[in-house]
Amino acid sequence: MEAFPAATPAASLVFTTVLSQGPLSRVELSRRTGLSSAAVTKAVRPLMAAGYFVEAADESAPPAVGRPANPVRVDGGRALFIGVKVTADEVIAVLADLCCRIRLARHVPLTAREPGAVIAVIAELTAELRTEAEGFGVPVQGLAVAVSGDVDRAAGVVRYSPFLDWRDIALAELTTAVTGLPATVDNDVRALTVAEQWFGAGVGLSNFALVTVGAGIGCGLVVNGRVVSGAHGVAGEIGHLSIDPRGPLCHCGNHGCVEAIASDSAIVRRIERDTGEPLAGPAQALELAHGGSPVAREAYADAGAAIGRAIGSVVNLLGPERVIISGEGLAAYDLFAAQIKEAFSATAFSTADQCDVITRPLAFEEWARGAAATAIQTFIGSDTF
Amino acid sequence: MEAFPAATPAASLVFTTVLSQGPLSRVELSRRTGLSSAAVTKAVRPLMAAGYFVEAADESAPPAVGRPANPVRVDGGRALFIGVKVTADEVIAVLADLCCRIRLARHVPLTAREPGAVIAVIAELTAELRTEAEGFGVPVQGLAVAVSGDVDRAAGVVRYSPFLDWRDIALAELTTAVTGLPATVDNDVRALTVAEQWFGAGVGLSNFALVTVGAGIGCGLVVNGRVVSGAHGVAGEIGHLSIDPRGPLCHCGNHGCVEAIASDSAIVRRIERDTGEPLAGPAQALELAHGGSPVAREAYADAGAAIGRAIGSVVNLLGPERVIISGEGLAAYDLFAAQIKEAFSATAFSTADQCDVITRPLAFEEWARGAAATAIQTFIGSDTF
Ligand SMILES: [Zn+2]
Ligand SMILES: [Zn+2]
Repeated sequence: MEAFPAATPAASLVFTTVLSQGPLSRVELSRRTGLSSAAVTKAVRPLMAAGYFVEAADESAPPAVGRPANPVRVDGGRALFIGVKVTADEVIAVLADLCCRIRLARHVPLTAREPGAVIAVIAELTAELRTEAEGFGVPVQGLAVAVSGDVDRAAGVVRYSPFLDWRDIALAELTTAVTGLPATVDNDVRALTVAEQWFGAGVGLSNFALVTVGAGIGCGLVVNGRVVSGAHGVAGEIGHLSIDPRGPLCHCGNHGCVEAIASDSAIVRRIERDTGEPLAGPAQALELAHGGSPVAREAYADAGAAIGRAIGSVVNLLGPERVIISGEGLAAYDLFAAQIKEAFSATAFSTADQCDVITRPLAFEEWARGAAATAIQTFIGSDTF
Repeated sequence: MEAFPAATPAASLVFTTVLSQGPLSRVELSRRTGLSSAAVTKAVRPLMAAGYFVEAADESAPPAVGRPANPVRVDGGRALFIGVKVTADEVIAVLADLCCRIRLARHVPLTAREPGAVIAVIAELTAELRTEAEGFGVPVQGLAVAVSGDVDRAAGVVRYSPFLDWRDIALAELTTAVTGLPATVDNDVRALTVAEQWFGAGVGLSNFALVTVGAGIGCGLVVNGRVVSGAHGVAGEIGHLSIDPRGPLCHCGNHGCVEAIASDSAIVRRIERDTGEPLAGPAQALELAHGGSPVAREAYADAGAAIGRAIGSVVNLLGPERVIISGEGLAAYDLFAAQIKEAFSATAFSTADQCDVITRPLAFEEWARGAAATAIQTFIGSDTF
């Protein structure tokens, strides 16, 4: 693989600032990074020479030598990356450019969840996407896989993924062995948080939280500009904040966890219990609620209250500038938005309720795009500084 | 005041590393800071020349010129600082050296809580401690005041302190006006967290939490090496994590906050309710429990369970390496230690329970020492990098 020409912390800072906030003039870059204009010029030059940066103005003209006042931007098409998300049912892979724009997406259903079977599917999708990448005339520089559960990114190991029933799988090494590409593995919510931090609703914020609702209830945290990983591999476990000690039993063994009240399956179980009728799944629960079933509507309302109280806890502890709510569960947002807001406002202490709570609808490919964002991090070496 | 001779981020990093982890050799300093040995030498020289650093080995010998392999340490006696803690009842002030060792401590009861009256007491204590400082032959370089509540340290303003009933008091400016000293103000729990980070059980840790129990339930957080302040002035509000929606009403308006179950006054109220007898205060509650009263013992046990669950929430969200429990409430530790541990273990998700939970008895002067730690931060300029 090609080496990325930003080998110092200053060069990495300049690149990531332009990547997430560009186009930016050199003067503005100096202001935002706190580096001297000489240091900025020194960092920009090799990135320009290698084609990672281009002059932003007058793009149709030939490369603008001698006009250093022009803003610079990243040439997204300069490198491609593959992002993969593994769920219990399928593997989703995207081909993304250096600016994390999705160029292509592919889904393949999973028939077996053993690591070998999953890695075979990843290898197949990777081969397919690399063939497509040839059409862009740009090499794929890296690959990343995101899974739910405890993932040790530095070691490249999935410590424990309950959905896949994996323990201590050296996924990065195994994936590199079959694809020949540098591979990164990360927790799926943390990967999505990286994508929001660099390319989404977290750009320019030092402190924000991403809360995902759906099959599970997850949370990614950025504090003082950095994603929180936890000293023992656990962080952002908002799903297991206990909201009500007399609440329903959670798969973690406690009562009244947010996930035991507000996850898709918890909502389904609750409606089944209250109606005495089996449901086919979350889609049917949503249909019942949208059709006006009081029992179903109450299940969603209680889910919203639990999510809102959990967000209140995050805000009371960390005081983020923004909380971004996302995930497949947003399909039910009209059913619990009011309860989320109400419970959050009631729980937030003092000025904490000034925190900006927004929603971001999330296409399922976005999870794979999150993985691609971590592959970009690895390629540009920002995770090592 | 004297200017501190470490005007660059590198020099500040070198100084704070020796301050909290010294004595350290230059080679070790280079390793721990990631700076080149040339950069370390350049940073050490002016600090040595101005007497802030001394050679650590062979302290009885004259200054060891030409032996740069010797470890260096901070000369604590080189500068003095005053730390002040204001409670609802008294003002505590300490004279601390540059290594944050307490040289003298003074308490004065408060007869009025208006800012003017409190500042007059601070001025009086400061004058007294400066007179004492003359005996050490070292000038006092700065002063800091810690109060509970929302404090905007950068602006020097107490936004809201419920115990004092203060709103938007420009305490730093007012204190400087009467003392002539550079003044820092900070939230009391955050100040104590700084003292633990630099001089206590948090030295060398990038992620830890300090939980204080007593009149209130507080929490200071260090994430990725930095104290968390919150975007809107609120952070670490563990006292208002809601533990039980059917629990007792809290002064914040919610039910079942940790503070409504586990603060000194909540425990007193609970025992009064269950026995029907008025109590003189927390000391009597403690006496009853130690005397074997089942009602009192149950109140402390429930307090411990609430604190343990709150610590579990902090650990699930942030995955700190260590949680330090401190505060006056530790006087009752034998009455709730088992419940804290049990509730923490039950609540901590997955590997999060590997977090090291320790207790640190806290003399009341330590709150004022926490303030002194922030005065040291301001003096050496570490808060500006
Ligand atoms: Zn749970
Ligand atoms: Zn409260």
